Amino acid sequence: MGVIGARGRMGAEVVRAVEAAPDLEVVAAVDAGDPLSGLADAGARVVVDFTNPDVVMDNLRFCVDHDIHAVVGTSGFDTRRLAAVGEWLGSKPELGVLIAPNFAIGAVLSMRFAELAAPYYDSVEVIELHHPRKVDAPSGTAAHTARLISQARQAAGLGPMPDATEQEAPGARGAVVGDVRVHSLRLSGLIAHQEVVFGTEGETLTLRHDSMDRKSFMPGVLLGVRSVVGRPGLAVGLAEYMDL
Amino acid sequence: MGVIGARGRMGAEVVRAVEAAPDLEVVAAVDAGDPLSGLADAGARVVVDFTNPDVVMDNLRFCVDHDIHAVVGTSGFDTRRLAAVGEWLGSKPELGVLIAPNFAIGAVLSMRFAELAAPYYDSVEVIELHHPRKVDAPSGTAAHTARLISQARQAAGLGPMPDATEQEAPGARGAVVGDVRVHSLRLSGLIAHQEVVFGTEGETLTLRHDSMDRKSFMPGVLLGVRSVVGRPGLAVGLAEYMDL
Amino acid sequence: MGVIGARGRMGAEVVRAVEAAPDLEVVAAVDAGDPLSGLADAGARVVVDFTNPDVVMDNLRFCVDHDIHAVVGTSGFDTRRLAAVGEWLGSKPELGVLIAPNFAIGAVLSMRFAELAAPYYDSVEVIELHHPRKVDAPSGTAAHTARLISQARQAAGLGPMPDATEQEAPGARGAVVGDVRVHSLRLSGLIAHQEVVFGTEGETLTLRHDSMDRKSFMPGVLLGVRSVVGRPGLAVGLAEYMDL
Amino acid sequence: MGVIGARGRMGAEVVRAVEAAPDLEVVAAVDAGDPLSGLADAGARVVVDFTNPDVVMDNLRFCVDHDIHAVVGTSGFDTRRLAAVGEWLGSKPELGVLIAPNFAIGAVLSMRFAELAAPYYDSVEVIELHHPRKVDAPSGTAAHTARLISQARQAAGLGPMPDATEQEAPGARGAVVGDVRVHSLRLSGLIAHQEVVFGTEGETLTLRHDSMDRKSFMPGVLLGVRSVVGRPGLAVGLAEYMDL
Repeated sequence: MGVIGARGRMGAEVVRAVEAAPDLEVVAAVDAGDPLSGLADAGARVVVDFTNPDVVMDNLRFCVDHDIHAVVGTSGFDTRRLAAVGEWLGSKPELGVLIAPNFAIGAVLSMRFAELAAPYYDSVEVIELHHPRKVDAPSGTAAHTARLISQARQAAGLGPMPDATEQEAPGARGAVVGDVRVHSLRLSGLIAHQEVVFGTEGETLTLRHDSMDRKSFMPGVLLGVRSVVGRPGLAVGLAEYMDL
Repeated sequence: MGVIGARGRMGAEVVRAVEAAPDLEVVAAVDAGDPLSGLADAGARVVVDFTNPDVVMDNLRFCVDHDIHAVVGTSGFDTRRLAAVGEWLGSKPELGVLIAPNFAIGAVLSMRFAELAAPYYDSVEVIELHHPRKVDAPSGTAAHTARLISQARQAAGLGPMPDATEQEAPGARGAVVGDVRVHSLRLSGLIAHQEVVFGTEGETLTLRHDSMDRKSFMPGVLLGVRSVVGRPGLAVGLAEYMDL
Repeated sequence: MGVIGARGRMGAEVVRAVEAAPDLEVVAAVDAGDPLSGLADAGARVVVDFTNPDVVMDNLRFCVDHDIHAVVGTSGFDTRRLAAVGEWLGSKPELGVLIAPNFAIGAVLSMRFAELAAPYYDSVEVIELHHPRKVDAPSGTAAHTARLISQARQAAGLGPMPDATEQEAPGARGAVVGDVRVHSLRLSGLIAHQEVVFGTEGETLTLRHDSMDRKSFMPGVLLGVRSVVGRPGLAVGLAEYMDL
Repeated sequence: MGVIGARGRMGAEVVRAVEAAPDLEVVAAVDAGDPLSGLADAGARVVVDFTNPDVVMDNLRFCVDHDIHAVVGTSGFDTRRLAAVGEWLGSKPELGVLIAPNFAIGAVLSMRFAELAAPYYDSVEVIELHHPRKVDAPSGTAAHTARLISQARQAAGLGPMPDATEQEAPGARGAVVGDVRVHSLRLSGLIAHQEVVFGTEGETLTLRHDSMDRKSFMPGVLLGVRSVVGRPGLAVGLAEYMDL
């Protein structure tokens, strides 16, 4: 397989993780300035792309043209871009492309489980805890989780959550995403953590995901690489390759 | 609907919960000594049974004979008993019976999510925490959860969990159920709590269920009552009525 | 000992808890309408007061006049009221009065430990989780905890906490009390819970208190009753009787 | 200041941490093979030693002889060794030496808070969670914490903890240290984590410490370096320099 963006932080981790996997091998590692042709010349069947929104569409075009499956962690895919990739794949019925905003398996599972649990609980809120260098609050994953929960609640016909709050210090009850409250903590020593807390009569259910290291994305990337070969078409989100 | 065992702890809660539900009504509440015919006379369409293993089969026979759907929380159902109920239902194609060992929705979800997550993690252990009046360790739910995880790991072809322990104070690493370590805490002030902790490279996923009150079984009982009418046949476990 | 407000929710629990304690006995239980003289007539040495701000000063005046030690859980004590009680006690050098806003030992310990830990951490935030019938956010205990932490940070000469947040959905980062962020969750199934999370380079420390039941105040009330007899003068807060 | 064992894992971190601190400077960094005289020649006032039990006593002797304060993280100090160091310091009334088994401030605080809380709770158990490469269970810190709690319970005259367990799968209830149950989890993805859970009527208190990185020892080492200069004599354990 090949890696594009191989000298970036994530790309370098991918190279290391693939080298440690007994069933996979890196045949070409390219970065800004290197010709993409190196990937085809080396006979890469699958390519992993952690680059940036400016170049990722060209990279993907190249892969599709050369019958190389692609696993993409680069951000910036909107509906228009996804539609373009889908169209390219129309003429390549055996080729697979996975575009995933998050490769942490625990984050993917948390989101899926949150969606599944949502219809059964009166109340649910999200807490996300990150290192203090993070610039946005809430995190993209927390906002996405809240939106999925909100949609699942709506689909199940649930009414508003019970909440008798009358006196609130500004911000105490968090940000509202969909109909879900999200609370963002920023603390020295933390990395990336998220808790979804559900409650109903007499019980609570908590889904907690702790990501301690950039390495936590690697099992998800490898799952993508191993699965994309047998999954023709465009997949958005790692969950599509998981049996959930 | 009707309740058998209506003066028991669980039965009394069921009566209270049904009375609080706008779409349901208790038309007959019977207990030891009362004739079952009261259920049929009152026109109960569904019956909830929290009694004991000695009488539950007679109760169920009565319900099936009188075309009454049944939701059963009584314990003691082995393969032979389940087969008998299945056979009775053979001649009643519209009738539904739910036999569930645990009506806490959070416990049911935890177990299902644990099964779904198991294939994606190298390591997993279970912690259960209960009040100190409990006589068995680990709890039945924890042992069952560990067995489900063990089966899911085996089905996914996972090898043994990494563990370099060489010096162990007796009991430190917990009890082994299937291939999963289970740890039991008994503390004053607790009610019933369980944590399943999964780990892989750089991340962990924790499923925590806190049951604060016997009332926590009621949303599950009501879900059973509302669902059993539209689900002919024998269902074992509340999960069969949930979209998981 | 005697109980004032004995038919209220807290007072009734106090009566039950004292009756269950082998070394204590309720000799007089009075409520609105009953004469306070019953306490003196019965020879109560200590009185517990869970009443309301309108009557508590009269009750305390009576106790001091009759040489009865008092343990008070009633709210509404400001500096002026505390000064008045202190003055009354000036002429009774052997008498003790405890006025405590919170009798949950875990809450008292959490607050004290939070103060002690504060100087050693760059970052700290508070999460409080309560049932959805609560009208104020944050809880009084959480606000008080945040204020104590803030003072301890200031006394230690700590600068502002690190926080690079640039884009914040309104409320995501919680309410600010002193210089501490406080996050309030309201979920069905919860009772009263609080978490103080400290962070510094590479590590975090979490103090979590879970109160499952009004009974959780009783060990603190009994500690007050047993200690007040040997602690002349006015004590504010149960911590003064604890060896912390 | 100087560092002995400067090329070891911990020593190298110390050098990095000191260089990042505006008020401290490394004037000499020595390791096996380098002469200790380099420390005195460079005018080091304080030395940090992370070496090994074979050489640490010689290092300390050198420091005391040359009027250099010492902060020691090396293991292997028994009563005999501590007595020897104490004796050397007898003739140097201004010199300070800190010998600490654990520099993680959160671990030190957890242990101290556990001791302080112990007298107020009926029940307490310890859970420690580590990476699966750890060879001993329970961890040294967990065993030490359990022993401190046990002593505090005994000093407070507490009886045995309530526990009705009659049927126990071997190991379910953990290892017994003093009179405290300790549970050890080993999971891929974890680093070093510990939870002390206290319980009494209606409430629990949990002290959790998460150590995510070897860096977590550095704030404690720096605290030791800054404090040792003003604290003549032998101190055992970082807690002696903390206001707890």
